Amino acid sequence: MSALAARYLGARTVDTGSAPVTPPGPGEVQLAPAYVGVCGTDLHIFHGAMDTRVTRPAVLGHEMSGRVTAVGPGVEDWRAGDAVTVMPLRWDDTCTACRAGHQHVCRNLDFIGIDSPGAMQQRWTVPASTLVRLPGTVRLDHAALVEPTAVAVHDVRRAGVRPGERVVVVGGGPVGILIALTARAAGAEVRLTELSAYRRGLAADLGLDVWDPAADDVPGLVERWTEGAGAQVAFEVSGAQAGVDTAVEVLGVRGRLCQVAIHPAPREVNLHRFFWRELVLVGARLYDRSDVERAVALVADGTVPADRLISRVVPLTEAASAFDALESGEDVMKVLVRCDDTIEEATA
Amino acid sequence: MSALAARYLGARTVDTGSAPVTPPGPGEVQLAPAYVGVCGTDLHIFHGAMDTRVTRPAVLGHEMSGRVTAVGPGVEDWRAGDAVTVMPLRWDDTCTACRAGHQHVCRNLDFIGIDSPGAMQQRWTVPASTLVRLPGTVRLDHAALVEPTAVAVHDVRRAGVRPGERVVVVGGGPVGILIALTARAAGAEVRLTELSAYRRGLAADLGLDVWDPAADDVPGLVERWTEGAGAQVAFEVSGAQAGVDTAVEVLGVRGRLCQVAIHPAPREVNLHRFFWRELVLVGARLYDRSDVERAVALVADGTVPADRLISRVVPLTEAASAFDALESGEDVMKVLVRCDDTIEEATA
Repeated sequence: MSALAARYLGARTVDTGSAPVTPPGPGEVQLAPAYVGVCGTDLHIFHGAMDTRVTRPAVLGHEMSGRVTAVGPGVEDWRAGDAVTVMPLRWDDTCTACRAGHQHVCRNLDFIGIDSPGAMQQRWTVPASTLVRLPGTVRLDHAALVEPTAVAVHDVRRAGVRPGERVVVVGGGPVGILIALTARAAGAEVRLTELSAYRRGLAADLGLDVWDPAADDVPGLVERWTEGAGAQVAFEVSGAQAGVDTAVEVLGVRGRLCQVAIHPAPREVNLHRFFWRELVLVGARLYDRSDVERAVALVADGTVPADRLISRVVPLTEAASAFDALESGEDVMKVLVRCDDTIEEATA
Repeated sequence: MSALAARYLGARTVDTGSAPVTPPGPGEVQLAPAYVGVCGTDLHIFHGAMDTRVTRPAVLGHEMSGRVTAVGPGVEDWRAGDAVTVMPLRWDDTCTACRAGHQHVCRNLDFIGIDSPGAMQQRWTVPASTLVRLPGTVRLDHAALVEPTAVAVHDVRRAGVRPGERVVVVGGGPVGILIALTARAAGAEVRLTELSAYRRGLAADLGLDVWDPAADDVPGLVERWTEGAGAQVAFEVSGAQAGVDTAVEVLGVRGRLCQVAIHPAPREVNLHRFFWRELVLVGARLYDRSDVERAVALVADGTVPADRLISRVVPLTEAASAFDALESGEDVMKVLVRCDDTIEEATA
C-alpha cells in the first residue's frame, strides 16, 4: 500500500508523490494526519540550508493534528479514531542530557519531521509515546497550532514570567505572537515589536500592543511605559542582530532575556549591560510534555485564537504552494497543509 | 588638619600629597585605613580610561581594612579602635533598582573610591552604614582582601553553584582565583584556565587544578573530565573574546555562565549554543552585605589564603609604585598600599 506524501527533494523543491505506508510495529501507532503547519525550520530546510542533516527525499512536518488509524502490538491506550497531536521528539534516555532529566534536549535527539519522516503525508507511523490526546472540542485545523504554542509555553516558563511583569516580545511571527498571547495569559503586560505591517496589524487585531521598530523609538517607549524601570522580561524571536540589541537594551535591573530565535552566526552582545544590570539570558528550545499539554488547553480555550492565525490551508497535492506562499513574502501568518480530505471539520 | 593621600591626577600619574581631614558628620565615621588593595578598576582609572567618571585629583581605593578613629553624632554601634572594612556602596533608596530590592546596583550608585573619595589616605570619612566589623582574629593586611572576596562570593551565589558541580573559571587573576576558592569551598570541583605562567603557578600552589588555554585543548579536557556532559558552571573572568568563547563552549546542557569580567565593547556570543543547550548567562556585579559578611568569614578561616595572594605591600608614600608594579606585567597578584605605619599587625 502507498499513500501521498509531500517530499523535500532539494533546495526550493517540494513535490507530492507516493510514499510507502508502514504498518505500526510494537509500541507504534499509525496516524492519518489531518493538518500540518509549515514551520520556520521547514522553510529553512526548503532553502537547502539543512541538507547535511536532512535525508532526501524528506517528508517534512512536525506541527500536526490527526487521528489514529491503527495501533501496533502492545499499544493499549489508543484506538482508531482518537484525535491526537504528536510531540515529535524521540530521545535516547542514555545521554548526559537525558540522565540529567532534560530529555527534550537529548544529545542524540531525533526530531521527528527533520531527522526522520514527518507528518505531511496521508499515513504516518510514530511511537505511541509521542501521542498527546486532543479533546473533542478542539477543531483539528486549530490543533495544528499546538506544537508552536508548546514552544511559546516553554519559553514563557523558562523566562519565569510572573503576573504583572512587563514583557517585550521582539519579533511578531507565529512564535512571537504565541509568546505574547501566552505571556498575557500568564498575567503579564506585553508589548510586541515587529517590522512587518501585516503582522503588526494582525497582532493588533488580537488585542496586542504593537510597536514598529523601524519607526518607533522602542527603548524610549519602554522607558516611559515602565517609568524608567525597564522591562522585566524580553523575548528575542527575531533572529536578527538588531533584535538582540533591542532585547538587551529594554531590560531593567535583573531583567531576563529569553533567547528563542535561531541565530546561525554569533551575535554581538552587550555583555557590559549584562554585568551592569545583572541581566540574565536564558536559552530555550522545544518543550516537554507538560508544555504540550498546556498548549492543548490554550488552543482549546481560545487563548490562542487559532482561526485568526491560520492564513491559508492548502491540500497535500499542492504542498509546494504552502512553501511558496511563506517564501514569497506574501502576507501570511500560519499556512497549513491539509493531508486527509476525508477528515470532517467541526465547523465549516 | 591634613593627612597624606594617594591621588590620581591624570593618565598614569599618581602622587602622594596632603588631603584635608574631614571630621565625621552625623551618621559618619572617621577611619584610619590600614591596608588598601589596588583593584583592576583602579588600574583602569590609572590608565585614564574613566576620566569622565572620576573627579580629579581623585583618592582611589575601595578594598580596605582599618580602624575607627572617631565617630560622628548619632553613631552608636562603633567606637574608636574597632577593626573594620567598608562596603563601599552608597545607594539612593529611591530608584527603580533600589525599590526592587537591588540596592547594590542602584541606578545612581555612589561607588566610594571611584565616584567619591576612596581609602588610600591616612584618614577617611564614610557613612557608618558602610562599615562591616572584622573579628579580632583577622590580620588587617589579610582583611584588605575581603572586598574582592565578596565579589567572588556574590558571583558564586549568582551562579547557584551546588556541591559536586563541575565548574570552569576562565581567568586566574585575583577575582578568578577567589571565585575558584569560593566555589571549591561550596563543594564544587573546579578547573581554572589562565594564560600567565606566574598566575597558574600560584593557583597550583593553592591546590587548584589549572589549565593553560594557549597550550591545552580546554574544551577537550572538559569533555573528558565531565565524561561528555560538559561543565555545569563557567565563570568568565578574563574580559577577552577568547574567554567568552571558551566559557560558552565548555558548558553542558542547562549550564550557567556567570559573567564577571567587564567587557567595554560588545562581544560575539554563540547564541545558537544558548538555544541548543538551553544555557543561561547570569550577569553579576558587586555584592550585598551578606556577601561581604561571608567574605569576612572566608578570609578569617583561611579558605582565602590571603598571605599567599598578597604579593607586595608598599607604603602610602610610594603608592605610585603599586600601580607601576601591576602595570609593568611584573609577576604580582595582589598589591596593597599600607596607609598607617603605626597600625600594629596581629603577627609579624
